[in-house]
Amino acid sequence: MERPFVIINSAMSADGKISSFQREQVRISGPEDMGRVRGLRAGSDAVMVGVGTVLADDPGLRIKSSDHRKMRKDEGLSEEPLRVVVDSLARTPLGSEVLGKGSILAVSKAAPEERLDLLRDKCEIAVCGDIRVDLPLLLSILHNKGVRRLMVEGGATLNWSLIEAGLVDEISVYVGAMIIGGEGAPTLVDGPGFSTDYPKLSLISADRLDDGVLLRWRVLR
Amino acid sequence: MERPFVIINSAMSADGKISSFQREQVRISGPEDMGRVRGLRAGSDAVMVGVGTVLADDPGLRIKSSDHRKMRKDEGLSEEPLRVVVDSLARTPLGSEVLGKGSILAVSKAAPEERLDLLRDKCEIAVCGDIRVDLPLLLSILHNKGVRRLMVEGGATLNWSLIEAGLVDEISVYVGAMIIGGEGAPTLVDGPGFSTDYPKLSLISADRLDDGVLLRWRVLR
Repeated sequence: MERPFVIINSAMSADGKISSFQREQVRISGPEDMGRVRGLRAGSDAVMVGVGTVLADDPGLRIKSSDHRKMRKDEGLSEEPLRVVVDSLARTPLGSEVLGKGSILAVSKAAPEERLDLLRDKCEIAVCGDIRVDLPLLLSILHNKGVRRLMVEGGATLNWSLIEAGLVDEISVYVGAMIIGGEGAPTLVDGPGFSTDYPKLSLISADRLDDGVLLRWRVLR
Repeated sequence: MERPFVIINSAMSADGKISSFQREQVRISGPEDMGRVRGLRAGSDAVMVGVGTVLADDPGLRIKSSDHRKMRKDEGLSEEPLRVVVDSLARTPLGSEVLGKGSILAVSKAAPEERLDLLRDKCEIAVCGDIRVDLPLLLSILHNKGVRRLMVEGGATLNWSLIEAGLVDEISVYVGAMIIGGEGAPTLVDGPGFSTDYPKLSLISADRLDDGVLLRWRVLR
């Protein structure tokens, strides 16, 4: 099955945390990195988050810059990338910022029908997988919709699921000049974790940005 | 109270883990970084680990290189830095590599007397704190013994305790080209975690080393 080129983008503290143990959003990056992230988003065909990120942060995932919108239109693209939520049980709240025209909710067959009925006029619904969203199938569906470049904006569990399934090509992580700490705080990649055959990376670049460092890794396996 | 200059040194995966969820040691760094760590150790007056690291990895914390030993002797130092284990309840096994001449076991008053009796001829015992090791007091004791430069070699809980107590001056972390993952895997800094007043860092340097990046941070607060 063909799939898009997949980039995970995230910011983490110097100790690998993407938010605090209370799952509160922490401002880790600065203006330079935020500009970079907006550019990366504008250059993507779709952006993807897990439902945990929707529940914790309620991100809009929109293109706010009129320059970016114009750039996309000039290239014959939609003004904004598609917004995809991986949400096996359709727990995305009806008022979530991510919903609306251009959004796709990827659910499994286990998602309650009454939730889907409520959500159906706020987003496109893609059913893939029995109990959990079948990620290779979802990426193939997105590819069929013309998505060639997919930006994943977290969180820790979706990052894990994609990496574990061998579906990630690149990881861009801004390492911020702070410590968050906490054995319960979400990290860049959570899930059960590897204990053998750790995925290998290759460093593309390491550049100072704001007060931290942007590390770009290619995923090798 | 005066204390030594404290450097935390560690290697972590690109996602901030220092070992797998099974707490098994993972080879994260390569020969260049391992050489750097040996040099850092040889330039320290004492090296410190938490008992969790002793139980998990049984490190020796010795100076193997005869050049390093000679360098220290030429400078009027002992051939090896002191080896300090932070172990509130004296759980360090009697056969641990870290024990022997030049080792200090820092325990609290809650450590069972019979454990101390067993350990006493294998190390110096420093009792500081009622239930947990009083780290400021321990650092002051080490300073009184002439320790001016202390290298902390983990693990996640000791790193947390020292940072939380405001006792760390520098963090050197080698970021390796691999993903470990796992919400249960130890990270660079665990413990309960911060939820406000996150300690701020200042980037000293970011340099490619082996297949990864060495980040050196100054702790600002």
